[in-house]
Amino acid sequence: MTTGKMEVAVLGPLGTYTHEAAFKFFGSEVVYNEQDSIADVCGALSSSVPFGIIPQENSIFGTVVETYDILRNTGPNFVRGEIVLKINHCLIVKKGVKLHQIRKVMSHEQALGQCMDFLADKLPEAVSVKTKSTAAAARELLDSPSDCAAICSGICAELFPGLEILFTSIQNERSNFTRFHAIAYSRQASLPHFLTIDYEMKALLRITPCSKSSLECPTDIIAFLLDQNIIIGRIDRRPFVDSVPFSSVYFMEIRASDLHDRSSHRFQAWSQEVESIASKLGTTSRQTHVIGIW
Amino acid sequence: MTTGKMEVAVLGPLGTYTHEAAFKFFGSEVVYNEQDSIADVCGALSSSVPFGIIPQENSIFGTVVETYDILRNTGPNFVRGEIVLKINHCLIVKKGVKLHQIRKVMSHEQALGQCMDFLADKLPEAVSVKTKSTAAAARELLDSPSDCAAICSGICAELFPGLEILFTSIQNERSNFTRFHAIAYSRQASLPHFLTIDYEMKALLRITPCSKSSLECPTDIIAFLLDQNIIIGRIDRRPFVDSVPFSSVYFMEIRASDLHDRSSHRFQAWSQEVESIASKLGTTSRQTHVIGIW
Repeated sequence: MTTGKMEVAVLGPLGTYTHEAAFKFFGSEVVYNEQDSIADVCGALSSSVPFGIIPQENSIFGTVVETYDILRNTGPNFVRGEIVLKINHCLIVKKGVKLHQIRKVMSHEQALGQCMDFLADKLPEAVSVKTKSTAAAARELLDSPSDCAAICSGICAELFPGLEILFTSIQNERSNFTRFHAIAYSRQASLPHFLTIDYEMKALLRITPCSKSSLECPTDIIAFLLDQNIIIGRIDRRPFVDSVPFSSVYFMEIRASDLHDRSSHRFQAWSQEVESIASKLGTTSRQTHVIGIW
Repeated sequence: MTTGKMEVAVLGPLGTYTHEAAFKFFGSEVVYNEQDSIADVCGALSSSVPFGIIPQENSIFGTVVETYDILRNTGPNFVRGEIVLKINHCLIVKKGVKLHQIRKVMSHEQALGQCMDFLADKLPEAVSVKTKSTAAAARELLDSPSDCAAICSGICAELFPGLEILFTSIQNERSNFTRFHAIAYSRQASLPHFLTIDYEMKALLRITPCSKSSLECPTDIIAFLLDQNIIIGRIDRRPFVDSVPFSSVYFMEIRASDLHDRSSHRFQAWSQEVESIASKLGTTSRQTHVIGIW
Protein backbone atom coordinates (compact mmCIF):
# COMPACT_ATOMS: atom_id res chain seq x y z
CA MET A 1 0.00 0.00 0.00
CA THR A 2 1.64 3.29 -1.00
CA THR A 3 -0.61 6.02 0.34
CA GLY A 4 2.29 8.30 1.27
CA LYS A 5 1.09 8.11 4.86
CA MET A 6 3.35 7.11 7.74
CA GLU A 7 2.98 3.49 8.85
CA VAL A 8 2.44 2.43 12.48
CA ALA A 9 2.84 -1.22 13.52
CA VAL A 10 0.24 -2.57 15.95
CA LEU A 11 -0.39 -5.86 17.68
CA GLY A 12 -3.13 -7.26 15.42
CA PRO A 13 -5.62 -8.15 14.21
CA LEU A 14 -7.00 -4.71 13.34
CA GLY A 15 -10.00 -3.94 15.53
CA THR A 16 -8.37 -5.05 18.80
CA TYR A 17 -7.84 -2.74 21.75
CA THR A 18 -4.20 -2.21 20.73
CA HIS A 19 -5.44 -0.91 17.41
CA GLU A 20 -7.95 1.30 19.22
CA ALA A 21 -5.13 2.68 21.38
CA ALA A 22 -3.02 3.35 18.29
CA PHE A 23 -5.96 5.12 16.66
CA LYS A 24 -6.49 7.22 19.79
CA PHE A 25 -2.85 8.36 19.54
CA PHE A 26 -2.19 8.64 15.79
CA GLY A 27 -5.76 8.97 14.42
CA SER A 28 -6.51 8.53 10.73
CA GLU A 29 -3.37 10.30 9.49
CA VAL A 30 -1.37 7.06 9.43
CA VAL A 31 -1.66 3.54 8.00
CA TYR A 32 -1.85 0.68 10.52
CA ASN A 33 0.42 -2.28 9.90
CA GLU A 34 -0.85 -5.34 11.76
CA GLN A 35 1.60 -7.73 13.44
CA ASP A 36 1.12 -11.07 15.20
CA SER A 37 3.05 -10.48 18.41
CA ILE A 38 4.65 -7.78 20.51
CA ALA A 39 8.07 -8.98 19.33
CA ASP A 40 6.90 -8.70 15.71
CA VAL A 41 5.72 -5.10 16.28
CA CYS A 42 9.18 -4.18 17.59
CA GLY A 43 10.89 -6.15 14.84
CA ALA A 44 8.81 -4.41 12.13
CA LEU A 45 10.06 -0.91 13.02
CA SER A 46 12.25 0.87 10.47
CA SER A 47 12.51 4.27 8.87
CA SER A 48 9.39 3.46 6.81
CA VAL A 49 7.43 2.07 9.81
CA PRO A 50 8.85 4.44 12.43
CA PHE A 51 6.40 3.74 15.29
CA GLY A 52 4.63 0.84 16.90
CA ILE A 53 2.09 0.41 19.69
CA ILE A 54 2.48 -2.31 22.32
CA PRO A 55 0.62 -2.93 25.61
CA GLN A 56 2.69 -2.17 28.72
CA GLU A 57 0.35 -2.72 31.68
CA ASN A 58 -3.26 -3.51 32.52
CA SER A 59 -4.83 -2.05 35.65
CA ILE A 60 -6.14 -5.46 36.76
CA PHE A 61 -3.68 -8.00 35.31
CA GLY A 62 -0.45 -6.02 35.73
CA THR A 63 2.58 -5.54 33.54
CA VAL A 64 2.90 -7.27 30.16
CA VAL A 65 5.83 -9.62 30.59
CA GLU A 66 6.51 -9.96 26.85
CA THR A 67 6.93 -6.18 26.55
CA TYR A 68 9.36 -5.98 29.49
CA ASP A 69 11.35 -8.91 28.13
CA ILE A 70 11.84 -7.06 24.86
CA LEU A 71 12.76 -3.81 26.64
CA ARG A 72 15.29 -5.89 28.59
CA ASN A 73 17.41 -6.37 25.47
CA THR A 74 19.67 -3.77 24.02
CA GLY A 75 18.19 -2.56 20.75
CA PRO A 76 17.51 0.58 18.80
CA ASN A 77 13.84 0.83 19.88
CA PHE A 78 12.92 3.73 22.14
CA VAL A 79 9.72 4.56 24.04
CA ARG A 80 8.32 7.86 22.76
CA GLY A 81 4.79 8.01 24.11
CA GLU A 82 2.03 6.49 26.21
CA ILE A 83 -1.67 5.86 25.67
CA VAL A 84 -4.08 4.91 28.44
CA LEU A 85 -7.21 3.23 27.11
CA LYS A 86 -10.33 2.29 29.02
CA ILE A 87 -11.25 -1.24 28.00
CA ASN A 88 -14.79 -0.55 26.98
CA HIS A 89 -16.69 -3.51 25.54
CA CYS A 90 -19.50 -2.71 23.09
CA LEU A 91 -22.36 -4.84 21.79
CA ILE A 92 -22.16 -4.55 18.02
CA VAL A 93 -24.74 -5.70 15.46
CA LYS A 94 -25.48 -5.42 11.75
CA LYS A 95 -27.07 -2.03 11.07
CA GLY A 96 -30.75 -1.91 12.03
CA VAL A 97 -30.75 -5.06 14.23
CA LYS A 98 -32.61 -4.58 17.53
CA LEU A 99 -31.86 -6.16 20.90
CA HIS A 100 -34.90 -8.48 20.89
CA GLN A 101 -33.73 -10.10 17.61
CA ILE A 102 -30.37 -11.30 19.03
CA ARG A 103 -30.05 -15.07 19.64
CA LYS A 104 -26.25 -15.48 19.47
CA VAL A 105 -23.39 -13.40 20.93
CA MET A 106 -19.81 -13.92 19.70
CA SER A 107 -16.59 -12.74 21.36
CA HIS A 108 -13.30 -13.73 22.93
CA GLU A 109 -13.81 -15.86 26.03
CA GLN A 110 -12.47 -13.14 28.35
CA ALA A 111 -14.79 -10.47 26.97
CA LEU A 112 -17.80 -12.82 27.24
CA GLY A 113 -16.85 -13.41 30.88
CA GLN A 114 -16.38 -9.71 31.57
CA CYS A 115 -19.87 -8.95 30.19
CA MET A 116 -21.64 -11.78 32.04
CA ASP A 117 -23.95 -9.49 34.05
CA PHE A 118 -25.06 -7.57 30.96
CA LEU A 119 -25.74 -10.80 29.05
CA ALA A 120 -27.72 -12.34 31.93
CA ASP A 121 -29.78 -9.19 32.27
CA LYS A 122 -30.41 -8.17 28.64
CA LEU A 123 -29.89 -11.39 26.63
CA PRO A 124 -30.63 -14.30 28.98
CA GLU A 125 -31.75 -16.54 26.08
CA ALA A 126 -28.83 -15.83 23.72
CA VAL A 127 -26.12 -18.44 23.09
CA SER A 128 -22.50 -17.36 23.67
CA VAL A 129 -19.97 -18.39 21.01
CA LYS A 130 -16.21 -18.06 21.58
CA THR A 131 -13.96 -16.49 18.93
CA LYS A 132 -10.19 -16.09 18.67
CA SER A 133 -10.23 -12.37 19.46
CA THR A 134 -12.84 -9.65 19.96
CA ALA A 135 -11.99 -8.30 16.49
CA ALA A 136 -12.51 -11.75 14.96
CA ALA A 137 -16.07 -11.75 16.36
CA ALA A 138 -16.83 -8.47 14.58
CA ARG A 139 -15.33 -9.79 11.35
CA GLU A 140 -17.46 -12.95 11.60
CA LEU A 141 -20.57 -10.88 12.23
CA LEU A 142 -20.35 -9.52 8.67
CA ASP A 143 -21.16 -12.99 7.25
CA SER A 144 -23.63 -13.98 9.97
CA PRO A 145 -27.44 -13.78 10.04
CA SER A 146 -29.18 -10.80 11.65
CA ASP A 147 -29.81 -12.61 14.94
CA CYS A 148 -26.08 -12.41 15.80
CA ALA A 149 -24.11 -9.83 17.78
CA ALA A 150 -20.44 -9.36 18.73
CA ILE A 151 -18.78 -8.00 21.86
CA CYS A 152 -15.70 -5.96 20.91
CA SER A 153 -14.01 -2.57 20.85
CA GLY A 154 -16.09 0.29 19.43
CA ILE A 155 -13.44 0.77 16.72
CA CYS A 156 -14.87 -2.31 14.94
CA ALA A 157 -18.02 -0.36 14.05
CA GLU A 158 -15.82 2.14 12.19
CA LEU A 159 -13.58 -0.53 10.71
CA PHE A 160 -16.26 -2.79 9.25
CA PRO A 161 -18.96 -0.92 7.28
CA GLY A 162 -22.42 -2.34 7.88
CA LEU A 163 -21.98 -2.75 11.64
CA GLU A 164 -23.17 -0.46 14.41
CA ILE A 165 -22.89 -0.12 18.19
CA LEU A 166 -26.03 -1.09 20.11
CA PHE A 167 -24.64 -0.70 23.68
CA THR A 168 -21.33 0.63 25.02
CA SER A 169 -19.51 -0.09 28.30
CA ILE A 170 -21.28 -3.39 28.94
CA GLN A 171 -18.51 -4.95 31.08
CA ASN A 172 -19.02 -5.86 34.77
CA GLU A 173 -15.75 -4.28 35.87
CA ARG A 174 -15.86 -0.52 35.47
CA SER A 175 -12.17 0.29 35.90
CA ASN A 176 -10.29 -1.86 33.43
CA PHE A 177 -7.61 0.23 31.74
CA THR A 178 -4.64 -0.74 29.60
CA ARG A 179 -1.60 1.45 29.17
CA PHE A 180 0.34 1.23 25.91
CA HIS A 181 3.78 2.39 24.84
CA ALA A 182 4.34 4.18 21.56
CA ILE A 183 7.71 2.79 20.58
CA ALA A 184 10.00 4.32 17.94
CA TYR A 185 12.56 2.61 15.71
CA SER A 186 15.29 4.86 17.10
CA ARG A 187 15.73 7.55 19.71
CA GLN A 188 16.05 10.13 16.93
CA ALA A 189 12.55 9.44 15.52
CA SER A 190 10.32 12.50 15.94
CA LEU A 191 6.64 12.13 16.67
CA PRO A 192 4.47 13.53 13.86
CA HIS A 193 3.52 17.19 14.39
CA PHE A 194 -0.26 16.54 14.34
CA LEU A 195 -0.28 14.69 17.69
CA THR A 196 -1.76 16.27 20.81
CA ILE A 197 0.27 15.23 23.83
CA ASP A 198 -1.27 15.96 27.20
CA TYR A 199 0.58 13.72 29.64
CA GLU A 200 3.42 14.59 31.99
CA MET A 201 6.98 14.20 30.70
CA LYS A 202 8.53 10.89 31.64
CA ALA A 203 11.50 8.64 30.93
CA LEU A 204 12.28 4.98 31.28
CA LEU A 205 15.60 3.74 32.68
CA ARG A 206 16.88 0.21 32.38
CA ILE A 207 19.41 -0.80 35.05
CA THR A 208 21.44 -3.96 34.51
CA PRO A 209 24.03 -5.44 36.85
CA CYS A 210 27.64 -5.61 35.65
CA SER A 211 29.42 -7.28 38.51
CA LYS A 212 28.56 -10.79 39.60
CA SER A 213 27.92 -9.65 43.15
CA SER A 214 25.05 -7.27 42.45
CA LEU A 215 22.00 -9.28 43.41
CA GLU A 216 20.51 -6.38 45.35
CA CYS A 217 17.98 -3.85 44.26
CA PRO A 218 19.79 -0.72 42.94
CA THR A 219 18.94 1.42 45.95
CA ASP A 220 22.00 3.62 45.37
CA ILE A 221 20.43 4.68 42.06
CA ILE A 222 17.06 5.31 43.70
CA ALA A 223 18.78 7.46 46.35
CA PHE A 224 20.60 9.41 43.63
CA LEU A 225 17.37 10.03 41.67
CA LEU A 226 15.58 11.26 44.78
CA ASP A 227 18.49 13.54 45.53
CA GLN A 228 18.04 15.06 42.04
CA ASN A 229 14.33 15.71 42.77
CA ILE A 230 13.24 13.06 40.30
CA ILE A 231 9.95 11.26 40.98
CA ILE A 232 9.96 7.48 40.53
CA GLY A 233 6.57 6.37 39.25
CA ARG A 234 7.08 2.66 38.66
CA ILE A 235 9.77 0.11 39.52
CA ASP A 236 9.70 -3.24 37.74
CA ARG A 237 12.03 -6.21 37.71
CA ARG A 238 12.76 -9.05 35.28
CA PRO A 239 15.40 -11.78 35.41
CA PHE A 240 18.80 -10.85 33.98
CA VAL A 241 19.47 -14.18 32.28
CA ASP A 242 22.93 -15.50 31.36
CA SER A 243 24.26 -14.12 34.61
CA VAL A 244 24.16 -15.10 38.28
CA PRO A 245 20.80 -16.83 38.93
CA PHE A 246 18.26 -14.37 40.36
CA SER A 247 20.14 -11.27 39.30
CA SER A 248 17.65 -8.75 37.92
CA VAL A 249 17.17 -6.01 35.39
CA TYR A 250 15.28 -3.13 37.00
CA PHE A 251 13.12 -0.69 35.06
CA MET A 252 12.38 2.71 36.57
CA GLU A 253 9.84 5.04 35.06
CA ILE A 254 10.74 8.53 36.22
CA ARG A 255 9.34 12.00 35.88
CA ALA A 256 10.36 15.51 36.74
CA SER A 257 8.90 16.99 39.90
CA ASP A 258 7.91 20.36 38.44
CA LEU A 259 7.53 20.01 34.68
CA HIS A 260 3.84 20.04 33.80
CA ASP A 261 4.24 22.32 30.82
CA ARG A 262 5.12 20.27 27.72
CA SER A 263 6.36 22.98 25.36
CA SER A 264 9.06 21.74 22.99
CA HIS A 265 11.56 23.89 24.86
CA ARG A 266 10.64 22.25 28.19
CA PHE A 267 10.68 18.79 26.63
CA GLN A 268 14.18 19.40 25.31
CA ALA A 269 15.30 20.49 28.78
CA TRP A 270 13.80 17.31 30.26
CA SER A 271 15.54 15.12 27.65
CA GLN A 272 18.87 16.75 28.49
CA GLU A 273 18.26 16.32 32.21
CA VAL A 274 17.52 12.60 31.75
CA GLU A 275 20.66 12.04 29.65
CA SER A 276 22.75 13.94 32.17
CA ILE A 277 21.39 11.90 35.08
CA ALA A 278 21.98 8.63 33.21
CA SER A 279 25.58 9.57 32.43
CA LYS A 280 26.22 10.29 36.12
CA LEU A 281 24.77 6.87 37.00
CA GLY A 282 27.47 4.92 35.17
CA THR A 283 28.94 3.00 38.08
CA THR A 284 31.10 -0.10 38.24
CA SER A 285 28.36 -2.45 39.50
CA ARG A 286 25.43 -1.33 37.27
CA GLN A 287 24.77 -0.01 33.81
CA THR A 288 21.99 2.51 33.28
CA HIS A 289 20.43 2.94 29.84
CA VAL A 290 17.79 5.49 28.91
CA ILE A 291 15.28 3.47 26.87
CA GLY A 292 12.54 6.05 26.55
CA ILE A 293 11.81 9.76 26.93
CA TRP A 294 8.27 11.00 26.28
CA MET B 1 -3.63 -40.77 56.96
CA THR B 2 -2.83 -40.51 60.68
CA THR B 3 0.89 -41.07 60.95
CA GLY B 4 1.31 -38.50 63.70
CA LYS B 5 3.69 -36.64 61.38
CA MET B 6 3.27 -32.98 60.54
CA GLU B 7 1.60 -32.31 57.17
CA VAL B 8 3.03 -29.96 54.54
CA ALA B 9 0.88 -28.81 51.61
CA VAL B 10 2.62 -28.72 48.21
CA LEU B 11 1.62 -27.75 44.70
CA GLY B 12 0.98 -31.20 43.21
CA PRO B 13 1.12 -33.73 41.80
CA LEU B 14 3.71 -35.43 44.01
CA GLY B 15 6.96 -35.82 42.09
CA THR B 16 7.02 -32.27 40.70
CA TYR B 17 9.81 -29.81 41.43
CA THR B 18 7.70 -28.14 44.13
CA HIS B 19 7.53 -31.48 45.88
CA GLU B 20 11.28 -31.89 45.46
CA ALA B 21 11.82 -28.43 46.99
CA ALA B 22 9.55 -29.33 49.90
CA PHE B 23 11.49 -32.55 50.40
CA LYS B 24 14.77 -30.64 50.35
CA PHE B 25 13.45 -28.43 53.17
CA PHE B 26 11.37 -30.79 55.34
CA GLY B 27 12.79 -34.18 54.33
CA SER B 28 11.04 -37.40 55.23
CA GLU B 29 9.92 -36.25 58.69
CA VAL B 30 6.64 -34.89 57.34
CA VAL B 31 3.70 -36.05 55.21
CA TYR B 32 3.17 -34.22 51.90
CA ASN B 33 -0.37 -33.09 51.15
CA GLU B 34 -0.78 -32.47 47.41
CA GLN B 35 -2.87 -29.53 46.18
CA ASP B 36 -3.95 -28.45 42.69
CA SER B 37 -2.95 -24.79 42.72
CA ILE B 38 -0.91 -22.24 44.64
CA ALA B 39 -4.15 -20.79 46.01
CA ASP B 40 -5.19 -24.27 47.19
CA VAL B 41 -1.85 -24.73 49.01
CA CYS B 42 -2.42 -21.47 50.89
CA GLY B 43 -6.06 -22.31 51.51
CA ALA B 44 -5.17 -25.76 52.89
CA LEU B 45 -3.04 -24.37 55.73
CA SER B 46 -4.32 -24.84 59.28
CA SER B 47 -3.00 -25.93 62.66
CA SER B 48 -2.90 -29.53 61.34
CA VAL B 49 -1.26 -28.57 58.00
CA PRO B 50 0.90 -25.75 59.35
CA PHE B 51 3.21 -25.26 56.33
CA GLY B 52 3.04 -25.17 52.57
CA ILE B 53 5.55 -24.79 49.74
CA ILE B 54 4.85 -22.51 46.79
CA PRO B 55 7.11 -21.30 43.94
CA GLN B 56 8.09 -17.62 44.21
CA GLU B 57 10.49 -16.99 41.32
CA ASN B 58 12.34 -18.76 38.53
CA SER B 59 15.77 -17.53 37.43
CA ILE B 60 14.74 -17.50 33.76
CA PHE B 61 10.98 -16.86 33.77
CA GLY B 62 10.77 -14.42 36.70
CA THR B 63 8.33 -14.03 39.55
CA VAL B 64 5.29 -16.29 39.90
CA VAL B 65 2.34 -13.95 39.47
CA GLU B 66 -0.16 -16.26 41.20
CA THR B 67 2.01 -16.30 44.34
CA TYR B 68 2.33 -12.50 44.46
CA ASP B 69 -1.41 -12.10 43.90
CA ILE B 70 -2.09 -14.25 46.95
CA LEU B 71 0.50 -12.39 49.05
CA ARG B 72 -1.27 -9.19 47.94
CA ASN B 73 -4.30 -10.08 50.03
CA THR B 74 -4.55 -9.71 53.76
CA GLY B 75 -4.59 -13.16 55.29
CA PRO B 76 -3.11 -15.13 58.14
CA ASN B 77 -0.41 -16.80 56.00
CA PHE B 78 3.18 -15.82 56.68
CA VAL B 79 6.43 -16.57 54.83
CA ARG B 80 8.74 -18.54 57.12
CA GLY B 81 11.44 -19.93 54.84
CA GLU B 82 12.97 -20.17 51.38
CA ILE B 83 14.26 -23.02 49.26
CA VAL B 84 16.34 -22.56 46.12
CA LEU B 85 16.21 -25.59 43.84
CA LYS B 86 18.24 -26.25 40.72
CA ILE B 87 15.83 -27.51 38.07
CA ASN B 88 17.68 -30.67 37.21
CA HIS B 89 15.96 -32.89 34.65
CA CYS B 90 16.74 -36.60 34.88
CA LEU B 91 16.18 -39.41 32.38
CA ILE B 92 14.32 -42.09 34.32
CA VAL B 93 13.61 -45.68 33.23
CA LYS B 94 12.27 -48.92 34.65
CA LYS B 95 15.04 -50.62 36.65
CA GLY B 96 17.59 -52.36 34.42
CA VAL B 97 16.61 -50.64 31.14
CA LYS B 98 19.63 -49.47 29.11
CA LEU B 99 19.92 -46.40 26.89
CA HIS B 100 20.00 -48.37 23.61
CA GLN B 101 16.58 -49.94 24.42
CA ILE B 102 14.72 -46.61 24.64
CA ARG B 103 12.32 -45.81 21.76
CA LYS B 104 9.93 -43.36 23.47
CA VAL B 105 10.56 -40.42 25.87
CA MET B 106 7.66 -38.93 27.84
CA SER B 107 7.59 -35.58 29.66
CA HIS B 108 5.98 -32.19 29.94
CA GLU B 109 6.41 -30.15 26.76
CA GLN B 110 8.72 -27.62 28.46
CA ALA B 111 11.03 -30.30 29.85
CA LEU B 112 11.21 -32.04 26.45
CA GLY B 113 12.19 -28.69 24.92
CA GLN B 114 14.77 -27.98 27.62
CA CYS B 115 16.44 -31.38 26.98
CA MET B 116 16.44 -31.10 23.19
CA ASP B 117 20.25 -31.25 22.83
CA PHE B 118 20.52 -34.34 25.01
CA LEU B 119 17.74 -36.10 23.09
CA ALA B 120 19.26 -35.23 19.69
CA ASP B 121 22.65 -36.48 20.83
CA LYS B 122 21.77 -39.61 22.82
CA LEU B 123 18.32 -40.64 21.55
CA PRO B 124 17.98 -39.29 18.01
CA GLU B 125 15.57 -42.11 17.01
CA ALA B 126 13.27 -41.92 20.05
CA VAL B 127 9.75 -40.49 19.77
CA SER B 128 8.83 -37.66 22.20
CA VAL B 129 5.43 -37.91 23.88
CA LYS B 130 3.93 -34.98 25.83
CA THR B 131 2.41 -35.50 29.29
CA LYS B 132 0.53 -33.16 31.62
CA SER B 133 3.46 -32.75 34.03
CA THR B 134 6.93 -34.22 34.49
CA ALA B 135 5.61 -36.27 37.42
CA ALA B 136 2.78 -37.62 35.26
CA ALA B 137 5.40 -38.98 32.81
CA ALA B 138 7.09 -40.92 35.63
CA ARG B 139 3.73 -42.27 36.80
CA GLU B 140 2.88 -43.39 33.26
CA LEU B 141 6.25 -45.08 32.94
CA LEU B 142 5.20 -47.62 35.58
CA ASP B 143 2.59 -49.08 33.21
CA SER B 144 4.65 -48.70 30.02
CA PRO B 145 6.84 -51.21 28.19
CA SER B 146 10.61 -51.30 28.79
CA ASP B 147 11.42 -49.22 25.72
CA CYS B 148 10.01 -46.07 27.41
CA ALA B 149 11.71 -43.37 29.49
CA ALA B 150 10.54 -40.25 31.32
CA ILE B 151 12.18 -36.85 31.85
CA CYS B 152 11.41 -35.57 35.34
CA SER B 153 12.76 -34.60 38.75
CA GLY B 154 15.04 -37.13 40.42
CA ILE B 155 12.58 -37.39 43.32
CA CYS B 156 10.36 -39.56 41.06
CA ALA B 157 12.87 -42.39 41.26
CA GLU B 158 12.43 -42.38 45.05
CA LEU B 159 8.68 -41.88 44.85
CA PHE B 160 7.84 -44.69 42.42
CA PRO B 161 9.50 -48.03 43.28
CA GLY B 162 10.71 -49.86 40.18
CA LEU B 163 12.14 -46.76 38.48
CA GLU B 164 15.74 -45.59 38.38
CA ILE B 165 17.78 -42.62 37.16
CA LEU B 166 19.80 -43.26 33.99
CA PHE B 167 21.14 -39.68 33.46
CA THR B 168 20.96 -36.52 35.58
CA SER B 169 21.19 -32.84 34.58
CA ILE B 170 20.25 -33.44 30.94
CA GLN B 171 18.83 -29.94 30.29
CA ASN B 172 20.40 -27.53 27.76
CA GLU B 173 20.30 -24.58 30.13
CA ARG B 174 22.64 -25.08 33.06
CA SER B 175 21.41 -22.30 35.34
CA ASN B 176 17.70 -22.83 35.76
CA PHE B 177 16.78 -22.34 39.42
CA THR B 178 13.44 -21.92 41.14
CA ARG B 179 13.07 -20.26 44.50
CA PHE B 180 10.20 -21.38 46.75
CA HIS B 181 8.58 -19.89 49.84
CA ALA B 182 7.80 -22.01 52.87
CA ILE B 183 4.57 -20.43 53.99
CA ALA B 184 3.00 -20.90 57.44
CA TYR B 185 -0.64 -20.82 58.45
CA SER B 186 0.08 -18.02 60.92
CA ARG B 187 2.99 -15.85 62.00
CA GLN B 188 3.12 -17.77 65.28
CA ALA B 189 3.81 -21.12 63.59
CA SER B 190 7.28 -22.38 64.55
CA LEU B 191 9.39 -24.30 62.08
CA PRO B 192 10.08 -27.85 63.21
CA HIS B 193 13.31 -28.20 65.21
CA PHE B 194 14.87 -30.74 62.82
CA LEU B 195 15.36 -28.24 59.98
CA THR B 196 18.82 -26.96 59.03
CA ILE B 197 18.56 -23.33 58.00
CA ASP B 198 21.61 -21.88 56.29
CA TYR B 199 20.36 -18.76 54.49
CA GLU B 200 20.60 -15.15 55.59
CA MET B 201 17.78 -13.71 57.69
CA LYS B 202 15.20 -11.88 55.63
CA ALA B 203 11.73 -10.38 55.77
CA LEU B 204 9.01 -9.50 53.28
CA LEU B 205 7.12 -6.21 53.47
CA ARG B 206 3.89 -5.49 51.61
CA ILE B 207 3.22 -1.81 51.00
CA THR B 208 -0.27 -0.77 49.92
CA PRO B 209 -1.46 2.74 49.12
CA CYS B 210 -4.15 4.26 51.35
CA SER B 211 -4.79 7.63 49.76
CA LYS B 212 -6.14 7.93 46.25
CA SER B 213 -3.21 10.08 45.19
CA SER B 214 -0.41 7.60 45.83
CA LEU B 215 0.40 6.33 42.35
CA GLU B 216 4.13 6.69 42.91
CA CYS B 217 6.64 4.14 43.99
CA PRO B 218 7.08 4.32 47.81
CA THR B 219 10.53 5.92 47.65
CA ASP B 220 10.04 7.49 51.10
CA ILE B 221 9.91 3.96 52.52
CA ILE B 222 12.99 2.90 50.55
CA ALA B 223 14.86 5.95 51.87
CA PHE B 224 13.81 5.12 55.45
CA LEU B 225 14.95 1.49 55.11
CA LEU B 226 18.34 2.57 53.75
CA ASP B 227 18.67 5.02 56.61
CA GLN B 228 18.17 2.10 59.02
CA ASN B 229 20.97 0.12 57.29
CA ILE B 230 18.53 -2.38 55.84
CA ILE B 231 19.44 -4.03 52.53
CA ILE B 232 16.65 -4.27 49.94
CA GLY B 233 17.09 -7.46 47.93
CA ARG B 234 14.02 -7.44 45.71
CA ILE B 235 11.30 -4.95 44.81
CA ASP B 236 8.17 -6.22 43.06
CA ARG B 237 4.91 -4.62 42.04
CA ARG B 238 1.38 -5.88 41.37
CA PRO B 239 -1.81 -3.93 40.63
CA PHE B 240 -3.76 -2.74 43.68
CA VAL B 241 -7.20 -3.45 42.29
CA ASP B 242 -10.44 -1.80 43.47
CA SER B 243 -8.57 1.47 43.75
CA VAL B 244 -7.29 4.15 41.37
CA PRO B 245 -6.31 2.42 38.08
CA PHE B 246 -2.55 1.70 38.00
CA SER B 247 -2.03 2.10 41.73
CA SER B 248 0.30 -0.64 42.94
CA VAL B 249 1.10 -2.91 45.82
CA TYR B 250 4.87 -3.05 46.31
CA PHE B 251 6.69 -5.99 47.86
CA MET B 252 10.14 -5.46 49.36
CA GLU B 253 12.31 -8.32 50.45
CA ILE B 254 14.75 -6.97 52.99
CA ARG B 255 17.67 -8.24 55.00
CA ALA B 256 19.92 -7.01 57.72
CA SER B 257 23.29 -5.68 56.71
CA ASP B 258 25.35 -7.49 59.33
CA LEU B 259 23.43 -10.51 60.54
CA HIS B 260 24.97 -13.64 59.08
CA ASP B 261 24.77 -15.65 62.25
CA ARG B 262 21.34 -17.32 62.53
CA SER B 263 21.29 -18.30 66.19
CA SER B 264 17.79 -18.23 67.67
CA HIS B 265 18.84 -15.22 69.72
CA ARG B 266 19.92 -13.32 66.58
CA PHE B 267 16.78 -14.37 64.72
CA GLN B 268 14.64 -13.02 67.55
CA ALA B 269 16.53 -9.73 67.41
CA TRP B 270 15.94 -9.55 63.64
CA SER B 271 12.22 -10.27 64.05
CA GLN B 272 11.94 -7.47 66.60
CA GLU B 273 13.88 -5.09 64.35
CA VAL B 274 11.55 -5.83 61.41
CA GLU B 275 8.42 -5.28 63.51
CA SER B 276 9.84 -2.07 64.90
CA ILE B 277 10.69 -0.76 61.42
CA ALA B 278 7.22 -1.66 60.11
CA SER B 279 5.52 0.13 62.99
CA LYS B 280 7.53 3.29 62.23
CA LEU B 281 6.47 3.05 58.59
CA GLY B 282 2.78 3.54 59.29
CA THR B 283 2.19 6.74 57.34
CA THR B 284 -0.96 8.40 56.07
CA SER B 285 -0.46 7.53 52.40
CA ARG B 286 0.74 3.90 52.70
CA GLN B 287 0.22 0.85 54.86
CA THR B 288 3.15 -1.47 55.54
CA HIS B 289 2.53 -5.06 56.58
CA VAL B 290 5.19 -7.58 57.52
CA ILE B 291 4.14 -10.73 55.63
CA GLY B 292 7.20 -12.85 56.27
CA ILE B 293 10.28 -13.17 58.50
CA TRP B 294 12.67 -16.04 57.90
